Amino acid sequence: MLIVMDKQARQEQVDEVVAVVESLGYQAKVIPGADRVAIGVVGNQGYIDDTAVSRLTGVSHVIHVTKPYKLVSRGFHPEDTVVSVGELRIGGDQPPVIIAGPCSVESEEQIFATAQAVKKAGAVMLRGGAFKPRTGPHNFQGLGETGLRLLSEAGREAGLPVVTEVMRIGQLELVSRYADVLQIGARNMQNFDLLKEVGLLDKPVLLKRGMCASIDEFLAAAEYILVAGNQQVILCERGIRTFETATRNTMDLAVVPLIKEQSHLPIIVDPSHATGKSSLVPPMAAAGIVVGAHGVMVEVHPRPETALSDGLQSLDFAAFAAMMRSLEGYLPASG
Amino acid sequence: MLIVMDKQARQEQVDEVVAVVESLGYQAKVIPGADRVAIGVVGNQGYIDDTAVSRLTGVSHVIHVTKPYKLVSRGFHPEDTVVSVGELRIGGDQPPVIIAGPCSVESEEQIFATAQAVKKAGAVMLRGGAFKPRTGPHNFQGLGETGLRLLSEAGREAGLPVVTEVMRIGQLELVSRYADVLQIGARNMQNFDLLKEVGLLDKPVLLKRGMCASIDEFLAAAEYILVAGNQQVILCERGIRTFETATRNTMDLAVVPLIKEQSHLPIIVDPSHATGKSSLVPPMAAAGIVVGAHGVMVEVHPRPETALSDGLQSLDFAAFAAMMRSLEGYLPASG
Amino acid sequence: MLIVMDKQARQEQVDEVVAVVESLGYQAKVIPGADRVAIGVVGNQGYIDDTAVSRLTGVSHVIHVTKPYKLVSRGFHPEDTVVSVGELRIGGDQPPVIIAGPCSVESEEQIFATAQAVKKAGAVMLRGGAFKPRTGPHNFQGLGETGLRLLSEAGREAGLPVVTEVMRIGQLELVSRYADVLQIGARNMQNFDLLKEVGLLDKPVLLKRGMCASIDEFLAAAEYILVAGNQQVILCERGIRTFETATRNTMDLAVVPLIKEQSHLPIIVDPSHATGKSSLVPPMAAAGIVVGAHGVMVEVHPRPETALSDGLQSLDFAAFAAMMRSLEGYLPASG
Amino acid sequence: MLIVMDKQARQEQVDEVVAVVESLGYQAKVIPGADRVAIGVVGNQGYIDDTAVSRLTGVSHVIHVTKPYKLVSRGFHPEDTVVSVGELRIGGDQPPVIIAGPCSVESEEQIFATAQAVKKAGAVMLRGGAFKPRTGPHNFQGLGETGLRLLSEAGREAGLPVVTEVMRIGQLELVSRYADVLQIGARNMQNFDLLKEVGLLDKPVLLKRGMCASIDEFLAAAEYILVAGNQQVILCERGIRTFETATRNTMDLAVVPLIKEQSHLPIIVDPSHATGKSSLVPPMAAAGIVVGAHGVMVEVHPRPETALSDGLQSLDFAAFAAMMRSLEGYLPASG
Repeated sequence: MLIVMDKQARQEQVDEVVAVVESLGYQAKVIPGADRVAIGVVGNQGYIDDTAVSRLTGVSHVIHVTKPYKLVSRGFHPEDTVVSVGELRIGGDQPPVIIAGPCSVESEEQIFATAQAVKKAGAVMLRGGAFKPRTGPHNFQGLGETGLRLLSEAGREAGLPVVTEVMRIGQLELVSRYADVLQIGARNMQNFDLLKEVGLLDKPVLLKRGMCASIDEFLAAAEYILVAGNQQVILCERGIRTFETATRNTMDLAVVPLIKEQSHLPIIVDPSHATGKSSLVPPMAAAGIVVGAHGVMVEVHPRPETALSDGLQSLDFAAFAAMMRSLEGYLPASG
Repeated sequence: MLIVMDKQARQEQVDEVVAVVESLGYQAKVIPGADRVAIGVVGNQGYIDDTAVSRLTGVSHVIHVTKPYKLVSRGFHPEDTVVSVGELRIGGDQPPVIIAGPCSVESEEQIFATAQAVKKAGAVMLRGGAFKPRTGPHNFQGLGETGLRLLSEAGREAGLPVVTEVMRIGQLELVSRYADVLQIGARNMQNFDLLKEVGLLDKPVLLKRGMCASIDEFLAAAEYILVAGNQQVILCERGIRTFETATRNTMDLAVVPLIKEQSHLPIIVDPSHATGKSSLVPPMAAAGIVVGAHGVMVEVHPRPETALSDGLQSLDFAAFAAMMRSLEGYLPASG
Repeated sequence: MLIVMDKQARQEQVDEVVAVVESLGYQAKVIPGADRVAIGVVGNQGYIDDTAVSRLTGVSHVIHVTKPYKLVSRGFHPEDTVVSVGELRIGGDQPPVIIAGPCSVESEEQIFATAQAVKKAGAVMLRGGAFKPRTGPHNFQGLGETGLRLLSEAGREAGLPVVTEVMRIGQLELVSRYADVLQIGARNMQNFDLLKEVGLLDKPVLLKRGMCASIDEFLAAAEYILVAGNQQVILCERGIRTFETATRNTMDLAVVPLIKEQSHLPIIVDPSHATGKSSLVPPMAAAGIVVGAHGVMVEVHPRPETALSDGLQSLDFAAFAAMMRSLEGYLPASG
Repeated sequence: MLIVMDKQARQEQVDEVVAVVESLGYQAKVIPGADRVAIGVVGNQGYIDDTAVSRLTGVSHVIHVTKPYKLVSRGFHPEDTVVSVGELRIGGDQPPVIIAGPCSVESEEQIFATAQAVKKAGAVMLRGGAFKPRTGPHNFQGLGETGLRLLSEAGREAGLPVVTEVMRIGQLELVSRYADVLQIGARNMQNFDLLKEVGLLDKPVLLKRGMCASIDEFLAAAEYILVAGNQQVILCERGIRTFETATRNTMDLAVVPLIKEQSHLPIIVDPSHATGKSSLVPPMAAAGIVVGAHGVMVEVHPRPETALSDGLQSLDFAAFAAMMRSLEGYLPASG
């Protein structure tokens, strides 16, 4: 942490800052400048809360050199984390995985047909929502436990592990009985109590980036899970909210190589939610793989035009199979 | 809902859209245009999920005329809602209320001193966090139940009702025992399960706007609470996230008169979180009252430079008292 | 400037950074830390381009302590600048001024009637566009020199100085013949060549904030004008672009007190463009005055429903007169 | 255009809207709804200015079905436009082109060495700025005509056409003498007068997307050039401004396939400005090609650590050559 003093700061004000820093157990290094003084704070192991010094008289502003997370950082843990879901491996040098399925589980017929179709085309995990976070209470909210059971059975029949969203702490036990991977949705990325609870489980977690979460906040959210004890976290970029409304969100692909520099955790992309438009999903899925994502999650539905949610961004079986063929060129030979 | 067809759409495609709309129980009105056809959907009582028609061949795009909420709208409920907290009235033509207190309850001495000081200066409700949502797990997370108890006792001694944040469903019973108003924080605005649960209680709710929530999403979040049965909702604008980093958030004051046009619920403003800088709080508080807010919530701390959270944006007692005097000119004589 | 080294940086890398800094004519102060070293750069008079050091091996990142502007800053020029437009004074402790008129000059009748009406209601300057920046080339582009002449004559008849936008360097001489204040529009805020040219004139400039300009960029744009020699600059907040689409832009009122802390230049607000909705203009105009703006610019049109541009956000004469009466309570007695 | 009436609108208000629409020369179709009436406007050839009707009593809001541009749209011109720069072809099914060079021309040695290096590695056009738009006036502003001459000579010697930015109308003749392609920078995307003037030339134009320009505004800016007569326009996505500050901008890659759906103009990407970080440039360049961009523009400098501008995002010769090899897998065999 660096404390920058006002140009007019007096020596006694500098002294007081030094005293407060030292009273907090750190060392203070005074750095004289041409027109103002700065004070470096050293000796800290992690992030320092700056409120004790920011308001002292004569202080202009405070600059943080360190980050609000540690366990998720590559500096702390240089080797890639590889998450295991049954036989499946996600992260590190493993070939990218394709996760596919409907936004919501709607019926037995729908989810079983989708499971078979995505498996045949090359997907290695099945997705499907049973509890749906919808903007308004008048929209379809998911099938609940019935949806979980159908998803699980469809996955087992097709030989695919399944991922599904958990929205509240009270659902954790139930959802964990059926799901191989627990998804934390974008709207819950900073539902810190839910993060703490999934951190206590021995089950992989797919953490989606919040719609307006910075990279630092995204990694700090993952930190909550790791601090609680669960290291099996997969990050997921799913688009951020910007001024542009021509797409549902703006897919921030540069975060993939950037997060791989800063963190050891695997990161996948979700081009369906990021773009909101089915014609944009295959090119953005390919782009995700090319920038180094460890996987791609795509929405697939037998008849998107009748889907109860997210139909506009879902691929039908033929479009998904075509996308999988088009991705071959971007996957390692063993992929 | 209006369905706009492609310029090249054929008559049979138009017919299919009409058939699908009618199969959903609505009426379809074909509107021929110079270069394309549109189809109006009528007969609906509320929001229509557009996925069934958006993906039909020949459809260009769909435009929604109605909103994803109903109970919170002024169209549905023209009279202002006035929320009662003990003797206090918030909303409608009532004079604006001032809610003040520390970001976090830190100690008995801190919260009791603050309660007395803000009461003396004219505040009518005491705020203070016992469970704190912090970006990273290494930051101070609040005193928990001890904090709740201290807040409640300090409020009672000063004759002020208290508002505090609830972060998870499992805390609802506990927090409700101590709080007069339950606060849902910005990060939980779309924690829909939490909204549904507070909707079942008979206790006023202060709902903060999410950092990147549109007005429609904000009102739709409130709709979750009203649908569940609780009509006592106070909205709170607390700044949105934009590209500008000179302030902590961007205070979106125009939503106050705009939401008063669209909804009957009371709306207050929080200039402390919106600006993140104590010198900007008094002018933005005054601005909030001038645009018609039903109240202002402000962070006050005995010694902001030592606060465990949000010290930069907190006023000390003298600054708060000065702000209250400066607001007098903007308050009704009876205020 | 502070140069933060990688945790793994070796001593020789630190030495190289020090050598480069000194080769640029500055002093380097090494600040040892618990887990990494930082290097303070001192001796500079202004902003330092960091590219020479940012890329050196072992450098993690660079933090700027100083700003990309100087002449506009209060540190450099502590006294308020008061801009004179004829008898009118804008800035400092002068009462806030009201500038009003149509978005575009459309006809002799329109602009003369408007000039009389806004004068009568209390406006002290007349606005009106003759050259209009429109998103697409198929929209009305303004009356050109005819518009300038009509504006100028209407202002003279009503006893009001006039402000109008100049869009290109080639128009400067023409527009200067008619205008008392030259407006630089939001889309041209970073048209640096235009800024340099108006900086050579002896005529007040009204500089509007760009739709996505940070405060630093806004002040740096004004710096271009001051550096060229023209100190008569009035800043204007007119809303920024955010994710929220319920209003045309998001009015960033907190910049008014913030810029008054950082700069000596006067700043006014434009609630018409900021909100895009006439019902929101009067409350946001009042809020602008309350937070300390030196003036308010408002769009007024005899019949907004027939306006060739911006009709939705324009007030008619009655609404403007009503707004002026409502503002009286917020203006100094002498205002 | 669709005019949505208030729920309480009376028949006479509907009649007035119809009358106004017809007085403007269009047809009005009344669409009765369950709780409100809408009025479709037909018979228009292009965009309709809505101000005449939006303000009529009883009108709730207006929805536009058509766009503020026409000539750039694929609906109007279905075949891909291929822009010719000497022998080079950009657009349609042509293999993607790589454009490379320094941010600024700094010296004869620098630009000649760069031209040779990028040519050898496979670039087909040389970039380099002679007039630089910089945030503040105290930064390096470019070499001016000397820079143009050096750029042109370096390109000729290497056998590469050159592209460089023009910032003002008065520079057009000068820059055109040296440049094969005229670049309009992001800050000037809505400098409409400059667009009109380059529209009168017979020279290809590279139009960069504004930092906060929507896709519609981007295409409408191109429309200004096409309307004036110049069809040789290349669009360039260079990142948009969002809340995320970990990268310089947020690269909006989904606009590439989206714009290819909506427009016939070629579109390239600039990962250097989009990310601001050299390590992110190669993966994002590859992603650009994979989503269908007609080219990639990259900043290359002999010694980025000494560059006078944009050094952080520039590749050195070795990194550029490595990137070109890594792109081979994504380019057509003939590329």
